Amino acid sequence: MKYAVIFGANSYEHEISIVSAVVLKKVFRADMSFVYCDSLGHFYLIPKDKMNAKTFSSKAYLKEKELFLKQGGFFEKGLFGEKKLECEMYINLVHGKDGEDGKFASLFEFFKLAYIGPRIEASVLSYNKELTKIYAQKVGVKTLPYKLLKSYDKASLAQDFDFPCIIKPARLGSSIGISVVKDKDELEYAKDVGFEFDEELLVEPFIKDIKEYNLAGCMIKDDFIFSMIEEPRKKELLDFEQKYLSFSGNNEVKEAKLDEALKAQFYEAFKKICNPLFKGALIRCDFFVIDNEVYINEINPNPGSLANYLFDDFSVVLERLARSVKNEKKVKTDFAFLHSINGSKGKL
Amino acid sequence: MKYAVIFGANSYEHEISIVSAVVLKKVFRADMSFVYCDSLGHFYLIPKDKMNAKTFSSKAYLKEKELFLKQGGFFEKGLFGEKKLECEMYINLVHGKDGEDGKFASLFEFFKLAYIGPRIEASVLSYNKELTKIYAQKVGVKTLPYKLLKSYDKASLAQDFDFPCIIKPARLGSSIGISVVKDKDELEYAKDVGFEFDEELLVEPFIKDIKEYNLAGCMIKDDFIFSMIEEPRKKELLDFEQKYLSFSGNNEVKEAKLDEALKAQFYEAFKKICNPLFKGALIRCDFFVIDNEVYINEINPNPGSLANYLFDDFSVVLERLARSVKNEKKVKTDFAFLHSINGSKGKL
Repeated sequence: MKYAVIFGANSYEHEISIVSAVVLKKVFRADMSFVYCDSLGHFYLIPKDKMNAKTFSSKAYLKEKELFLKQGGFFEKGLFGEKKLECEMYINLVHGKDGEDGKFASLFEFFKLAYIGPRIEASVLSYNKELTKIYAQKVGVKTLPYKLLKSYDKASLAQDFDFPCIIKPARLGSSIGISVVKDKDELEYAKDVGFEFDEELLVEPFIKDIKEYNLAGCMIKDDFIFSMIEEPRKKELLDFEQKYLSFSGNNEVKEAKLDEALKAQFYEAFKKICNPLFKGALIRCDFFVIDNEVYINEINPNPGSLANYLFDDFSVVLERLARSVKNEKKVKTDFAFLHSINGSKGKL
Repeated sequence: MKYAVIFGANSYEHEISIVSAVVLKKVFRADMSFVYCDSLGHFYLIPKDKMNAKTFSSKAYLKEKELFLKQGGFFEKGLFGEKKLECEMYINLVHGKDGEDGKFASLFEFFKLAYIGPRIEASVLSYNKELTKIYAQKVGVKTLPYKLLKSYDKASLAQDFDFPCIIKPARLGSSIGISVVKDKDELEYAKDVGFEFDEELLVEPFIKDIKEYNLAGCMIKDDFIFSMIEEPRKKELLDFEQKYLSFSGNNEVKEAKLDEALKAQFYEAFKKICNPLFKGALIRCDFFVIDNEVYINEINPNPGSLANYLFDDFSVVLERLARSVKNEKKVKTDFAFLHSINGSKGKL
């Protein structure tokens, strides 16, 4: 199967997405093209041997072939007309905005490209941290309690809460705009920082040394494939660089030592979250454990480098997923209604 | 301001959308172009004098100029290169799938076209009837109780409920796939019909002669514009044709006679639903009233012909809305992270 990896786009995680794609080139044994979306939304076909950081940071990518999205594929313009990029399966590797907020899912569905990545509804529910909590509750998975601060609603801003707490923009991936707030003095600044990125902020209790675990996986028809469960390295908060260098293959992955009952809880929670909303995507769920109970913290529907480092044989998993994905169905249009109006009720 | 109306697309309400656009041509006093999206996702520029049912039912539209979506606009190809469609404001008039499920919002955001219509998150939350209920509950607006039947979950299918009930596909607009079920004998057939359209069905109590009211409106910055409150004509269920011929201007609108307290309830509920999720759209909320209390039944973020018939001066409302809409912000990309990797940590 021929793949094309899409990465970049208008996102705070633009550069992380480039790193993800460079890593995927190394770890996924498959015939792959690389389609870079710059932050203005223009697409470029990047030759495999130019898939390195400098191509992007030096803007050398501007010299590569530009691609245009049309029904059925990406096309390049040539002297003898348009040429379609040969590809049977696109991989959405755009992190955060554009990639995980529903836009790329919409592009793939509208232009009818088969793709690995979250569908539109799955994107929206995992992109907004409040909706993630509401969704988790609906499917029976625990989450931390929260309050919502809304820049447009004074009553919400006057709420009291206990310290320390953690303040997060509702709709950003990675750690951008997130603050741990130790007391009331730090609060206003943390709000200001957060409101730079979103008009809604989540406030959660901050639990020092909380146990964190990551589990990746996907659905193939009615079955699940799970990765190992990782206990990620951490400081109080992983910063941008730490969090993402981890998937570039420079760190050893630490498999969590867990008893079977707790493992079963992780798998059960993952299934509830994934089935069927995240069909078509390889997702990573980031969990907390408190008093031996599993809480979902975050759903990453396009995790860094597709969390390849958590799987024994990542290439086999991704190939199997690729063979199982489905786009939306085409609706039949026969103009029967318009014919009937014109026939019986006078001209429209 | 120059407008372009987008209509059609891959939707069960494709033909209704054509009717909507023909009606808008008549009622909106403005400089408008018409961009038809056929059910395969190809765009055509339809001259104003050809905006009638026959152009579409006879497929005469195929002879019109094809348009291509690129960054910043729709373009037609000519002998001397590409020409951009002159337009400052797009109006999303695609009903149901594609138009209201987040796809067109995504296209407008990705390709950076200013538009009237629901944003991505608003689309997803109003397109899925279960998410609409969850959202309404979150913002403090009542909805009817429901149970969810999931084709992929046997336990959900074994649930008991009282008759009569109404069964609705979770993600379709209009009345398609909806059945009123009077007793257990009718149940299996109604499920089969519903599951033709969605893998999730909502079951609600069916309340005969329930009072229905429609209220349309929009947000302009922090203010609201409301239409009159209509009591729509009804049978047990409006069928496809009745429901939509109503906005083609052939029926008289019946303003509801309501006391001030109940009116205030409608406005209050509308505000809670609209603010701020549906900013940028002109929406119609369909309410029930039970025991003098208001329940939201459905949020139509692209209502038929934009519910023009409910406003005293529709053109003024739409012009004001157009001047207030905003697209998402551009994210700054400076490649600082990639520079730092290349500088200090060896080449990526």
